[in-house]
Parts: sequence; C-alpha cells; structure tokens
Amino acid sequence: MNGFRNKALTQLARVFEGMEVAIQGEIGSFSEEAAQRLGIEDLRIRSCRQFDEAFSLTASGQIDACLIPIENSLAGSIHRNFDLLRRYGLKIQKEIYLRIEHNLIVLPGVKFEDLTTVISHPVALQQCEQFFESNPHLRMRTSYDTSGSVKELVERKEKTWGAIAGRRAAELSGTEVIRFSIEDSKENYTRFVLLGRDFTDLEGANKTSVVFSFENAPGALFKSLGVFALRDIDLTKIESRPIRGRPWEYLFYLDILGSIEDEKVKNALNHLRELADSVEILGCYVRDESVSKRGM
Amino acid sequence: MNGFRNKALTQLARVFEGMEVAIQGEIGSFSEEAAQRLGIEDLRIRSCRQFDEAFSLTASGQIDACLIPIENSLAGSIHRNFDLLRRYGLKIQKEIYLRIEHNLIVLPGVKFEDLTTVISHPVALQQCEQFFESNPHLRMRTSYDTSGSVKELVERKEKTWGAIAGRRAAELSGTEVIRFSIEDSKENYTRFVLLGRDFTDLEGANKTSVVFSFENAPGALFKSLGVFALRDIDLTKIESRPIRGRPWEYLFYLDILGSIEDEKVKNALNHLRELADSVEILGCYVRDESVSKRGM
Repeated sequence: MNGFRNKALTQLARVFEGMEVAIQGEIGSFSEEAAQRLGIEDLRIRSCRQFDEAFSLTASGQIDACLIPIENSLAGSIHRNFDLLRRYGLKIQKEIYLRIEHNLIVLPGVKFEDLTTVISHPVALQQCEQFFESNPHLRMRTSYDTSGSVKELVERKEKTWGAIAGRRAAELSGTEVIRFSIEDSKENYTRFVLLGRDFTDLEGANKTSVVFSFENAPGALFKSLGVFALRDIDLTKIESRPIRGRPWEYLFYLDILGSIEDEKVKNALNHLRELADSVEILGCYVRDESVSKRGM
Repeated sequence: MNGFRNKALTQLARVFEGMEVAIQGEIGSFSEEAAQRLGIEDLRIRSCRQFDEAFSLTASGQIDACLIPIENSLAGSIHRNFDLLRRYGLKIQKEIYLRIEHNLIVLPGVKFEDLTTVISHPVALQQCEQFFESNPHLRMRTSYDTSGSVKELVERKEKTWGAIAGRRAAELSGTEVIRFSIEDSKENYTRFVLLGRDFTDLEGANKTSVVFSFENAPGALFKSLGVFALRDIDLTKIESRPIRGRPWEYLFYLDILGSIEDEKVKNALNHLRELADSVEILGCYVRDESVSKRGM
C-alpha cells in the first residue's frame, strides 16, 4: 500500500516538475505554504490578488495550474470556488490538506510586552479569540490578508505591533514568531486542490470528485447513493446545495474512493448518469489521507 | 397551506414576543437585519463582539435566545457555529434566510467622484471584485465588520471614503447609499438560526435538523438515508464532515421535512438510533421556504 502510494507520488512529482502555479494571495500566505507542500520540483508561483484571476490564467493556458482552497474544517466548503471550478471547466489534479496555524509575529528584537496592537485578517483575528481575551490590552487592527499584515508591519517598522500569520510569512520576511499556534481550535485545516485544464496522468489516482443535480429531487438522492453503495464504493464527502432561483433543484458534491478507470466506478458513474439530470466529473487524483482514512 | 403557515407564524410571533436576542456584531450588521426580519414584536437586541459570548449568554439563561449565521450560499456551512450549537446544547427554534446585499455608503452630500478609499470587511471587499476592477482608482481599506466600517466613516468624518455594508447600517447612521447592490453575485444568502435553551412550541413546526455519527462508516450513510427514503420523508440538506483525530468517523448534518411529533418522523429517528453511534436533534421549527420549495 505504502509502496504503491509512494510510487504514485513520485510519478506525480515527475508530471508536475517545473510547473508554474497561480495562487490567490501573497508569497508567505497559507496558499503559498500549501503550494510548497505539493512536493513539486522547481515550482514557480504566481501570486494573484483575486481568485478569478488565478482561475482565468489557468483556463486560458497562460499558466499550468492554480492551487485553490476548497473547504475548511471550521468554515465549511467554499462554494464560490466550486462554482469557479465548474465555470472555468478546470479539473482537480491533486489535493492537499494544510493545518492552519496562527502565530504572533513581530520585528526582530521586539518583546511581547512592547506590543499594543495586533494586525491580521479579521477571520484570523476571530480564530484567536481566547488569545485576545487573555490579553485585553491588545488592540486589533485588520488587514486584507495574513501575510499582508506581516508585510505592513515590516514596511511601517512598527515596534509596538504584532501580526498574526503562518510561519512561512515570518520566515520569508525576516521577522520573528514570539507566540506559536495561538488559534483557539487546533482542528483548523484547509483542503486545497490543484486545478489544471485536464485530468492529469491517472496512474495511482484513487479518489474522484463528482457533482450532479436533480430537477425532481424527492427520493433521488437515496437512489444515487445506491449506485455507489450497491457496488461497495465508499464516499469521503457528500454535500447538498439548493440551486437558487430553481426551487425544485439540488446540486450534490460527492467524493468517492476509486479512479474513473476502475470498472466498478465507471459503471457506477454511468448508472448515475441514468438517474441524474447532469453529472460532471471534477477530477480524479491521488488522495491526501491525512484527514480521513476510510470512506463512508 | 398558506393559512396553516400564517397561523404557525402568528403563533410563533406570540411565543417570541418581547424577547431579548443576542447577535454577534453591531447594530446595523447583517445579523441585526436578520433579527429585525424575525417579525418578533418588541424585540430587544444584545450586540456581542464574539459568537462564544452570544451562545454562552443564551445557555446560561441570561438572555432568551441568540440569532446565529449557520450557512451561506457562497461560503458554505459555518462548521464552527454548528460546533458551538452542540457544545452549548442549544436548540434551533426558527430559521431565516437573508439576502446579503453590499451597498456603497457615504457621508451625506458626498459624491462618487469624491471617493479615493473604500472600507469594509475583507470578505465584503472580495465579494465586490467587479466593482473594484471597474474603479481601479479606489483603494481598499479593511475593517472588522461591515457595519463597523460605516461607523468608522462617520466617526472620522471622511468625505473621501466610502464604506460597504447593508442598507440598515446606512439607515441607522444617517449616511447615504450611493450605489446599491454592488456585490458580484446576487445569489448571496445567509441562513440564520434562532437558538434557545429548549424546543419551542412545536405547533406548525415542519422541519427538523439532526446530526448523527458513525464509527464504522462504509455503507452506513446509505442505510441511514434509507431510514427516511423508505418512509417518504424528504431532506433539504445533507452534509458530511470527517471527525479530526478519529480517522474512521464521520459526522452527518441532515435537515428533514417534518416535525418530531409526526409518527413517521418519530419512527425514522428511532430507526436511525438503531444504526448510528449517536443521534442528536438540533431543533424542530417552522421552515423558511424562500430558498427551496421541495426536499430531495
């Protein structure tokens, strides 16, 4: 099993070598940290201000792929990025889970006692509620993103400011972490997906993401899960989404364990096409097992 | 059907009359706007800085209920608030969907041409990408929340600033909306739930929220959906969530159409208890039909 997995990963590393990947956010952001964890040799990163830009650079072929956050263990599925994925017709080529760790970062030599203000993205500030409750003298200040808050600290040479961001933002900016992992919940993980214009080499792929819809929904979900359950195909994610403006329709996201080249997965997907109004395969790729080891 | 619904709503209005409700955020925020839409007579609102505070005030009986965002059509389910709901053992008593509309707000008399800077929560700024692309001379500035950005505008008397927030923030602060609905996606809705210490009066309740878990998951999800499908009970939401640190376990969120006082729902829930490791009823309440009219 491990041998197989390693072989698959080595193969992937070869496929992706020298790739240029677009991310939303700056160098030092969680997206860039996730990109570094992909294990791609000679990776080049293009930083985009907006998600749309990262998707459109990839879809138009100006760049090889983009790495996009798709769900977070505390904040849920990022439906907007699922929508962009479908709109631009990209395919998931790889997934990676990143633990989101918030650290208190200061200019070199600055001590905790010197601080009056802490700057970061409001979501990061909110995820460190307990830290601010224990340190009520610290004023919060907001920034556009976590790594940008470190940049602002450095540019303004603010010796009474701390910034909250990932370790990589500190490493890259010559600043120092004086409190590690100050987030309230250690169960904070983001799932990123690497998106390209087509399926990648499928050798070793063992997970498939599908989206399907029903116009006339009652009972239909149960039947469509039967398509997989009756073939002993396990799932790792299911999520429904009402379709706005079409009050009778639902969209379903499903991650299944298996490759689209497996005979029983092929049959199940054909069976699903018989039942659903639309079936779209979002990708087939090697699974990151760090979250769940078994399907449902 | 409508008569029944109206009767149920009138009944609810009576149950909730004069209630004090905690929200996270300031007066003028989307949470407060949602609270005003509850239709509760003589409603009093307590503004909390953190979600935790709103939950704990309710659980300890210091306040009647709290109104909490639980999912958004673009950003997904707010798992953290589901976690708090379960941790504090509160029950959903009502649900309400609010359309999230972002408006450009200025001090009285200020014209669009005067603006150099626009302030708001980064998520709101991000949801207005197209507006900023069309107006590249406008600098973005971040604030802790949308209504807070209007407050800052007013306090600083900044005539070259605009703020992005809901209409209510403008109404309450004597400022003016000069561009309505500048968000990229009009399909931006947040589902809020009113949480109390117990089930409310169940007359008219037609929706039940359940969370359940499996330790040994393969095949189990299909069986548990059978519990409802075989009794012709429709669903309006299903979502799985891996349980961190327990790589074999999944948590499932289910919304079903029906009351826990209906015979077939009672039987289905008892049947589910036979299969699942844990079953928890998060609430039984009157459905807000503005999103989806039928189940799946």
